[in-house]
Amino acid sequence: MKIAVAKGDGIGPEIMEAVLKIFTANRVPLEYAFVEMGKWVFDKGFNNGMTPAAQQTIEELGLLFKGPMETPKGKGVKSINVTARKTWNTFANKRVFESLHGVTTVFSKAGIPIDITVVRENIEDTYGGIEHMLTYDVALSRRFITRPGSMQVIRYAFEMARQKKARRITCGHKANIMKLTDGLFLDCFYEVAKEYPELKADDVIVDDLCMKLVTRPDLFDVVVLTNLQGDIVSDLCAGLVGGLGFAPSANIGDYISIFEAVHGTAPDIAGKNIANPTALLLSGIAMLHHVGLTENAAIIENALLYTLESGVHTRDFGDKTIPAVGTTGFADAIISHFGKTPRIGAKEIIPNKPGTPTPMKLEKNPMMVSKEQGSETIAGVDLFIQSDEQPTTIAEKCKGHAGTKFKLVNISNRGTQVWPTGSVYTNLVNQYNIRFESINDQPLTQQDIIGLYVSMTGNFRICSFELLNKWGDKKAYSLAQGQ
Amino acid sequence: MKIAVAKGDGIGPEIMEAVLKIFTANRVPLEYAFVEMGKWVFDKGFNNGMTPAAQQTIEELGLLFKGPMETPKGKGVKSINVTARKTWNTFANKRVFESLHGVTTVFSKAGIPIDITVVRENIEDTYGGIEHMLTYDVALSRRFITRPGSMQVIRYAFEMARQKKARRITCGHKANIMKLTDGLFLDCFYEVAKEYPELKADDVIVDDLCMKLVTRPDLFDVVVLTNLQGDIVSDLCAGLVGGLGFAPSANIGDYISIFEAVHGTAPDIAGKNIANPTALLLSGIAMLHHVGLTENAAIIENALLYTLESGVHTRDFGDKTIPAVGTTGFADAIISHFGKTPRIGAKEIIPNKPGTPTPMKLEKNPMMVSKEQGSETIAGVDLFIQSDEQPTTIAEKCKGHAGTKFKLVNISNRGTQVWPTGSVYTNLVNQYNIRFESINDQPLTQQDIIGLYVSMTGNFRICSFELLNKWGDKKAYSLAQGQ
Repeated sequence: MKIAVAKGDGIGPEIMEAVLKIFTANRVPLEYAFVEMGKWVFDKGFNNGMTPAAQQTIEELGLLFKGPMETPKGKGVKSINVTARKTWNTFANKRVFESLHGVTTVFSKAGIPIDITVVRENIEDTYGGIEHMLTYDVALSRRFITRPGSMQVIRYAFEMARQKKARRITCGHKANIMKLTDGLFLDCFYEVAKEYPELKADDVIVDDLCMKLVTRPDLFDVVVLTNLQGDIVSDLCAGLVGGLGFAPSANIGDYISIFEAVHGTAPDIAGKNIANPTALLLSGIAMLHHVGLTENAAIIENALLYTLESGVHTRDFGDKTIPAVGTTGFADAIISHFGKTPRIGAKEIIPNKPGTPTPMKLEKNPMMVSKEQGSETIAGVDLFIQSDEQPTTIAEKCKGHAGTKFKLVNISNRGTQVWPTGSVYTNLVNQYNIRFESINDQPLTQQDIIGLYVSMTGNFRICSFELLNKWGDKKAYSLAQGQ
Repeated sequence: MKIAVAKGDGIGPEIMEAVLKIFTANRVPLEYAFVEMGKWVFDKGFNNGMTPAAQQTIEELGLLFKGPMETPKGKGVKSINVTARKTWNTFANKRVFESLHGVTTVFSKAGIPIDITVVRENIEDTYGGIEHMLTYDVALSRRFITRPGSMQVIRYAFEMARQKKARRITCGHKANIMKLTDGLFLDCFYEVAKEYPELKADDVIVDDLCMKLVTRPDLFDVVVLTNLQGDIVSDLCAGLVGGLGFAPSANIGDYISIFEAVHGTAPDIAGKNIANPTALLLSGIAMLHHVGLTENAAIIENALLYTLESGVHTRDFGDKTIPAVGTTGFADAIISHFGKTPRIGAKEIIPNKPGTPTPMKLEKNPMMVSKEQGSETIAGVDLFIQSDEQPTTIAEKCKGHAGTKFKLVNISNRGTQVWPTGSVYTNLVNQYNIRFESINDQPLTQQDIIGLYVSMTGNFRICSFELLNKWGDKKAYSLAQGQ
């Protein structure tokens, strides 16, 4: 089986060489196609950080093993890591956080074992990077959560939890505030949960989750979250086991998967043979499991755990009274411990069952659409205008544009209602949301919206609008604070 | 001086009574006007959880001391706590997290002292609660960050850091992903930092911050963040000192401030005289400082610390070999310790200097607008359409609508470019962003946008649009992933 390998920037090449050396010594039956990705590829003028040849190879092979990469700053280009995840729809980021015997942390000192798997949605949320300045003073990021995208990652999380015989699967969210977006994610979670009655499924507000993770992390098993919250929670969990240097990362898609170290490129220590390859090795081990090379994976992981237990360490961790080894020395120690069993956390050796690679040649982009779309009507529109006038002045002007089909329902500023009621103590910025709804709930057409919009531009600069949709009788939009 | 007091729901009344009993015993020179707010007020039919009389009293007095409150679920009403913060523009949420001697945590066991002050922006971000379903499958939350709002909270954080002689002030953010919104917040941070050269000001990505907070929390002093990230980080920090039961919360505004317990209402133990009043008491102590009653504050806080050190505890924490006391017993213990000095963390007693209340009667809503607004032009528009067709099909249709002023620049789906280039492995949902820009950078008018929008409605359902603005030569919008 052949996989694509991108060594990465900074310490990337040397830790990748260390890991591949361990793989080769263990006779891992993989071939490597090295591809061009990273900061140096941006510097060569490729705006997405990879060459077309690299993209083609990765899409042909379906598996990418990558070192840490840097995205040039201040050039307006997007993160290479995020581009890779989004372009190839690796919808689930799976990260396993296990206490490692030999890596001392606040929690290991307190005798609290960590064994948490975080599944993070990997495509959506503010990671869409859709941002606009509406006025000179107001910046907007469009945070979107989709039903099919949520179903995809949540289904993966449940399936994975079933396979690992998890005792609990928890949805982290902020649906008490983000009722439509995180509410949608939470609905999907409980919808999928019905298919897995043997799993204890529950949910927790993300801030409460973070508080519990620093007090009773042992209560959690599998946790699934939206993208940004998942990012924060997974790095928090990395801290529980000693930092990003000790946590693997797998980006799982239907066609292409990416296994990577998520720590930085550490350019200050690059080329010095002192970097710690543990995180990349753990990611590599996760990749071996993914392709069915379970025996190689277990032997290498046991050797790694034995090595850590023995007190062998690079200079970033471990017992300072034992001299640190270099990157290659650490790899050699692991190789010398093939066949050894650690005292704590030994992995069962299961014979390899390599999957036959089934390259899926797609003819067109997969479109994910929910079956029932409901009967949809337009109930009104939110017009976001630029203005530094007072709410009552704006209301008077807006009323003149309502015509025969619309009524002015409310005006809000930063999400707080300021008309028809509100408080004079609400501070304003120069962007208002003007909500018009149809009179007597009559369904509206796009032509109606156009008419209102054209009329309103006579008085205002309209920065954006959002249709107010209904599915059946259900309003598909939130009320303003105080409405 | 008179302040408004809302006892809250669940355990609210009994912990508020305990705190006010301590205040009275210490002859705190405050009078209390009790106001109607909370779940029971929602239940009486007041949609924002407070009576008009309550709102009037609070606005007259300028200070609200409140117990925990519950917002009814499933009624579509907004959180009473968030409504209060937003309506009265309490732009800064300040929470102080200090290790308490007598409250055992993972970190106290490891000998790591905690002394972190989190300042969270309190109005903006997705807490605006502006959400829309764009299609049956796609939910959107508008995350906005404003320049005046950011300046307001950041200026408060620096001023507070200067007063407490902080050694470091850190901005937590995700500007590497949310370049415009968190980028704006970060810019404001460093702009204000220039006025405080004596303070070490730096920034850290929020996921990295959370990892560092669970490994080396002692490195941080004052941390300032946007709303949701600040919410998560402050609850994480509450965990470091033993939970929400041990952390005060102050919501600071220009006209009105709110001091509150942020833990839950614990209806299961309400009325049993077993709830822990510590968080509300700490919030009350913060309020005494706020109004210049520094001597009362220090005497009461020292008595609290002495009580905790003595091993007195309610049943939710402390040494299980010592019998727990009830809520009133805990308050009585504190009262009996007035004048005592704790071994660790004793507060200096500074004579009271009560401020003269200066009720600010506002005639209109304050409008916060930055001085330089830049010269703004319209460079194009993003149209968000509903469609389950393939990108090339959509592109062909769109080209027909571009006319003489626009060019079709790119099409993206969930923020990833799918036309003119992209990958067939990018999964799609039924909502696309169609980006049109002006030909040859000619500035556009709203009439031009209307023309394009009207034309496009011939083929598509347009869910929303965002103007593409420029200030001078600077694009005020992000590129799509891969653009």
